[in-house]
Amino acid sequence: MASPPPAAIAELKAALGPSGWTEDAQEIAPWLTEWRNKWQGHTPLMLKPGSTEEVARAVEICARHGVAIVPQGGDTGLVGGQIPYGEVLLSTRRLRAVRDVTPLDDAMTVEAGVTLLEAQQAATAAGRFFPLSLAAEGTATIGGVISTNAGGTAVLRYGMMRDLVLGIEAVMPDGQMFNGLKRLRKDNTGYDLKQLLIGAEGTLGVVTAATLKLFPILRSRATAVVGLETAHAAIELLATAKAETGGGVEAFELMKRIGVEFALRHVPGVREPLDSVQPWYVLIELTSGEPGAAEAGMERILEAAFDRGLIVDAAIAQNETQVRDFWKLREEQSAAQKPEGGGWKHDVSVPVSQIADFLEEATAAVERFEPGARVSAFGHVGDGNMHYDILCPPGGDLTAFLGRWQAGSEVVHDIVAKYDGSISAEHGLGRLKTAEARRYKSALEVSTMQAVRLAIDPKRIMNPAVLF
Amino acid sequence: MASPPPAAIAELKAALGPSGWTEDAQEIAPWLTEWRNKWQGHTPLMLKPGSTEEVARAVEICARHGVAIVPQGGDTGLVGGQIPYGEVLLSTRRLRAVRDVTPLDDAMTVEAGVTLLEAQQAATAAGRFFPLSLAAEGTATIGGVISTNAGGTAVLRYGMMRDLVLGIEAVMPDGQMFNGLKRLRKDNTGYDLKQLLIGAEGTLGVVTAATLKLFPILRSRATAVVGLETAHAAIELLATAKAETGGGVEAFELMKRIGVEFALRHVPGVREPLDSVQPWYVLIELTSGEPGAAEAGMERILEAAFDRGLIVDAAIAQNETQVRDFWKLREEQSAAQKPEGGGWKHDVSVPVSQIADFLEEATAAVERFEPGARVSAFGHVGDGNMHYDILCPPGGDLTAFLGRWQAGSEVVHDIVAKYDGSISAEHGLGRLKTAEARRYKSALEVSTMQAVRLAIDPKRIMNPAVLF
Repeated sequence: MASPPPAAIAELKAALGPSGWTEDAQEIAPWLTEWRNKWQGHTPLMLKPGSTEEVARAVEICARHGVAIVPQGGDTGLVGGQIPYGEVLLSTRRLRAVRDVTPLDDAMTVEAGVTLLEAQQAATAAGRFFPLSLAAEGTATIGGVISTNAGGTAVLRYGMMRDLVLGIEAVMPDGQMFNGLKRLRKDNTGYDLKQLLIGAEGTLGVVTAATLKLFPILRSRATAVVGLETAHAAIELLATAKAETGGGVEAFELMKRIGVEFALRHVPGVREPLDSVQPWYVLIELTSGEPGAAEAGMERILEAAFDRGLIVDAAIAQNETQVRDFWKLREEQSAAQKPEGGGWKHDVSVPVSQIADFLEEATAAVERFEPGARVSAFGHVGDGNMHYDILCPPGGDLTAFLGRWQAGSEVVHDIVAKYDGSISAEHGLGRLKTAEARRYKSALEVSTMQAVRLAIDPKRIMNPAVLF
Repeated sequence: MASPPPAAIAELKAALGPSGWTEDAQEIAPWLTEWRNKWQGHTPLMLKPGSTEEVARAVEICARHGVAIVPQGGDTGLVGGQIPYGEVLLSTRRLRAVRDVTPLDDAMTVEAGVTLLEAQQAATAAGRFFPLSLAAEGTATIGGVISTNAGGTAVLRYGMMRDLVLGIEAVMPDGQMFNGLKRLRKDNTGYDLKQLLIGAEGTLGVVTAATLKLFPILRSRATAVVGLETAHAAIELLATAKAETGGGVEAFELMKRIGVEFALRHVPGVREPLDSVQPWYVLIELTSGEPGAAEAGMERILEAAFDRGLIVDAAIAQNETQVRDFWKLREEQSAAQKPEGGGWKHDVSVPVSQIADFLEEATAAVERFEPGARVSAFGHVGDGNMHYDILCPPGGDLTAFLGRWQAGSEVVHDIVAKYDGSISAEHGLGRLKTAEARRYKSALEVSTMQAVRLAIDPKRIMNPAVLF
């Protein structure tokens, strides 16, 4: 990546004023890496625009000079899509306004730098619910979760971020402002341009604000952990739970015993969820607008599941503390691996009906490829999405093991492809997986994406190393 | 539109064989117009490919010769997007297979020519529910409802067609096959190309098959008609209904007294829905997975609404016959206008909170523009979507009145624009509204759509007169 011409740097500084940029290495440092320390980027300049107009001015200058930009929100992405390697870093974190909340429209408009947690809180304050929820929600920003089409724990009921956006405001790659902040539920007047920007990982423009869908606050909620002998049983259980509740399943999260053990070993406060030890666990959460319906539905599901032999143990949370305990066990699955030495991580999806077959086949293949490796699979099985992580054999050479990540990933991803799955279900491609994705995408898909990108960003200044 | 070169016609005929095309004027005639008789097109050739491969062969030949194509499904579109004026007509009606239904994935894959009703039936046969529903469902095809991003009566709970598609197979404008028939719930590996094809009105390729989302069959359903003094009260009632049921409102359809009168007058079997006569009516339908919950929720809503003075009369359907009667009243709102002499029709949306203000302002403006004109507003008010139809004053000169349609529409649409609304909520732009849409779209939106289209269809052979 060539350095930006000094004239461009000077023009950017003048346009944004002293509070709108920094070259201070110490201030910039935290934004050049992320929590896994997998990336260590560099940038000549970090821009900190304070308004959409300032974003537009900055992008226009970069476009005119052919200067590449990496947009960044809360820097919680896991695939390096937000890390500059010589590009100008454009932070949206100063775009902090909740512009409006209109409960009668079940809508609110927030700027890109508002965190996901703050957005949830703004909705709650207006008597509504914003459902997107993920472990990094205190730091992840709305601009980031839109640009990566984030998923999380409530996708089963509410969909991914793509499904939760009514309108978008963005600065296009030439610096023009796209004002698509509609509060409409229906609008069939040409191509839906916001759909292009969602999940584009910053390659088609900078999202500066969005109008989000809100939902009623549900009065009834029931949370349980069940123990199962096989992952196949989990798929049958999911179908039972959907049928019994008619769409009331909000979360359906699978965990393997080994992941539960990691959490028990390394995370203070984590408890055994059941009296017995089981090969597989599922955390089920039901919600309903009807008072008492989630609780009644959970009883029906568990009774039917015991009768059919799908589950062998179960515990329904009796109070908020138990709900938190169950969720803590689930949410710490990733962090609890770290003290075990790290591993090859995968964020894959397959059709729900194929999850158990995929797990069996992939695990057998991994054991052949890397004898002794430990597979910790967990995640949003209700969406067909597993975080499929492979840890170094106990006592193995960690550095050598990590060196085989790419080859090991190909073993896993080839099986994902066999099941018509995705090698990045919710994290995106970023710098990490763009090259590998070419292995699985058709030439037509890649060339169509490239043609669309070229049409919108002819100078390819927006996050040039990311996507095709 | 220049006639296709004879060599192209010959090549198309040879490629598709005798059952794959027709020049028979009598066979073609019904497909050159639609039920409102607003359009009367013409075509040199109607193609009837029997497989995706045949569609691909036909499009490739057209692309090579620069021959324009209008794709057509069930020919139920209301804006002329499916009517050729010199283009080759490509019918997808012979693509008739239900390729698979996989209940554990809550998914099914059907070809473009399957009707919406047949798709619903295939889902039901597998113990699942496909929610898209609209008056023309016995004739409208899956390819058509995808290409127009159709809405209908269950959008409030399940979304528009865009929200119900997991994967798409299509033939691109150069004849290449795009195989995007995924059964995945989550896939973040680049731009979501299927989102471009949905709602593109056949301008970016021919949809040949799709994988659709299925849902549990809900056990509990309650239907009521209520009478209200104002449209403002309907908006408050909607918020109450959502809060009381936590998302259980499946349909919320507003009707004005005049439309009810038209139906009573002209449609055999339509009955007064209430004992009293009211200025406004809402048909509410609740569904729930919890046995008895919809019925209980309806009681709660109506009680709260009476207490707050939002409604003045109500009738809950006591049996299937009454449910059908209530829906018949709603579904005949459009057809019942025809014997009154036809009118200026509008399919508009505004933010839900603005519906009542919009109705007041637009009706006042229409009365100034066309004294004596009768406004029949009805529709999916839960989505902010109204079919806002203006009928000739009784005894007025119908031909002269219809001649003022465009000027009258501008009066309505300018007020829609003032409320940040859409001039085509669910019908699309087609030939009817493309030119008018330029009045309300920003230059940036139009130029971005044009750039994307040029990138995907550089020869502009796909439905060239439709969209920008």
